Amino acid sequence: MRFLAVPQLTLRRLNAVFSAGSVRRFGRMRLVQFCHKVAEGIVRVGVEQDEGQGIVDLKAFDPSMPSTMREFLELGPKGMDCAKRALSSGQNVLPRSDIRLLSPVTNPEKVVCVGMNYKDHCLEQNAPIPKEPIIFSKFPCSITGPNDDIILPDESQEVDWEVELAFVIGRKGKHIKEEEALSYIAGFTVANDVSARDWQMKRNGKQWLLGKTFDTFCPLGPALVTTDSLKDVHKLGIRCFVNGATVQESNTNQMIFQTEKVVAWVSQFVTLYPGDVFLTGTPPGVGVFRNPPVFLKVAL
Amino acid sequence: MRFLAVPQLTLRRLNAVFSAGSVRRFGRMRLVQFCHKVAEGIVRVGVEQDEGQGIVDLKAFDPSMPSTMREFLELGPKGMDCAKRALSSGQNVLPRSDIRLLSPVTNPEKVVCVGMNYKDHCLEQNAPIPKEPIIFSKFPCSITGPNDDIILPDESQEVDWEVELAFVIGRKGKHIKEEEALSYIAGFTVANDVSARDWQMKRNGKQWLLGKTFDTFCPLGPALVTTDSLKDVHKLGIRCFVNGATVQESNTNQMIFQTEKVVAWVSQFVTLYPGDVFLTGTPPGVGVFRNPPVFLKVAL
Repeated sequence: MRFLAVPQLTLRRLNAVFSAGSVRRFGRMRLVQFCHKVAEGIVRVGVEQDEGQGIVDLKAFDPSMPSTMREFLELGPKGMDCAKRALSSGQNVLPRSDIRLLSPVTNPEKVVCVGMNYKDHCLEQNAPIPKEPIIFSKFPCSITGPNDDIILPDESQEVDWEVELAFVIGRKGKHIKEEEALSYIAGFTVANDVSARDWQMKRNGKQWLLGKTFDTFCPLGPALVTTDSLKDVHKLGIRCFVNGATVQESNTNQMIFQTEKVVAWVSQFVTLYPGDVFLTGTPPGVGVFRNPPVFLKVAL
Repeated sequence: MRFLAVPQLTLRRLNAVFSAGSVRRFGRMRLVQFCHKVAEGIVRVGVEQDEGQGIVDLKAFDPSMPSTMREFLELGPKGMDCAKRALSSGQNVLPRSDIRLLSPVTNPEKVVCVGMNYKDHCLEQNAPIPKEPIIFSKFPCSITGPNDDIILPDESQEVDWEVELAFVIGRKGKHIKEEEALSYIAGFTVANDVSARDWQMKRNGKQWLLGKTFDTFCPLGPALVTTDSLKDVHKLGIRCFVNGATVQESNTNQMIFQTEKVVAWVSQFVTLYPGDVFLTGTPPGVGVFRNPPVFLKVAL
């Protein structure tokens, strides 16, 4: 495998390239957050005309619309309807060269993660298939944009990748039933659950939090693909590239606890709010379980 | 011990009474969040005239002041100066009967917790003294007001108490030095790190998060006592009462990793933001390590 032969090609500041291919293909409404290059720091909600195409500035279309995805999602159907009208209008379209994409959600109330949730990922580490979801978290400040750098911290020598299907909550709920769970999800996107294995596995009393939550350890996006645009979220290709080489490649049909189950499970414990981000677990191919292990490094 | 003899007196909806006594005594500025009883849902920042006395409505004193503590703290010294002037003015004072106290901070970006951080708490469970802080988290939605009910969830049979000294970050920082750490702290308050021991210790792959983060599992407050009001935060009595009986009683001089160390440690991993809440660990006397164990129950 080419990547293993040249681990020195990994980067101090990694431009992680990852995608859950079919999420993109089915996306009929792709919501994003962005800022104008001439006005960095001013966040806007947008709708992509098509993958990689122009972005409709929602607030330019309707000044009553909020500036952040979290507030937009809090509007519920009213916001979604407005986004559809904005997209149909063909107006207020910005060329991609004029904008910088942010993560589709920033400052959620919580980032919920599922561990050990792919059958093939359990197999690669000779771990038993969990009987219940294993839930941990990252702090919201770990979220970074889909094209932003991941900062390799001096505090870790074992930073690893984990591509994951992510979803975002669209309405408040507690004790949500599995059969109603999809109606609580605004849409799906892609995340990388970047992990400092030394801190996750050997330190901090084996509580995973610190190893998972360094600043920039949660690249998210680019787009939030609305739930009703997706045919079957549990039949999607999922891949991670590092320096152009494919390091993870699986399918969401390998997930042990599917989206609806995860929503129902976590909502037993806590109220879910619009904007809450869920990472649903990673497939095999992470660096730590390779022989020898491979971690991200400063580019020479 | 009376409490042990009558565990059935514990409540389904526990009005946890807890205090870190001396925090109160030294408090010269006590910041709170509250809502008017006639306008539930509208949050305000206030300053207590004295412990248990009238509350100065900051926004009534100066309409340019924000409505939430997190936004107030983001103002930095400008906000604190305004609060001092509001307190001195003796105006815009509301009697306590007109208001309902909320937790002093709501919706922080993060709630950071330290585990196993009292020498005497390690001794009660025959655990070694940790060599590094053990960091875990609760979701911000677990925060509830100082006089609000703790909801005993049907999902746990082992809900326990943990009184803790808490502090709140006052300005943004990363890689903060120990000797500068206090200047990043807006003030101190009291928390209860309510814990479902079955979920914390036996399930969820031994990741503590779920057992720690049920809704209402983080009572906080009443007041945020500003840092410059405190003489020595590591020489404070700390007690927890359940149904009037003292169940925990210790001193913050038993803390293994003191406030400054905890700030410096956590800021290696993540940027700290105004409003971030830290819980610094619990002294001995929790229910799970009693013989036999005692947990909170529905009142008969």
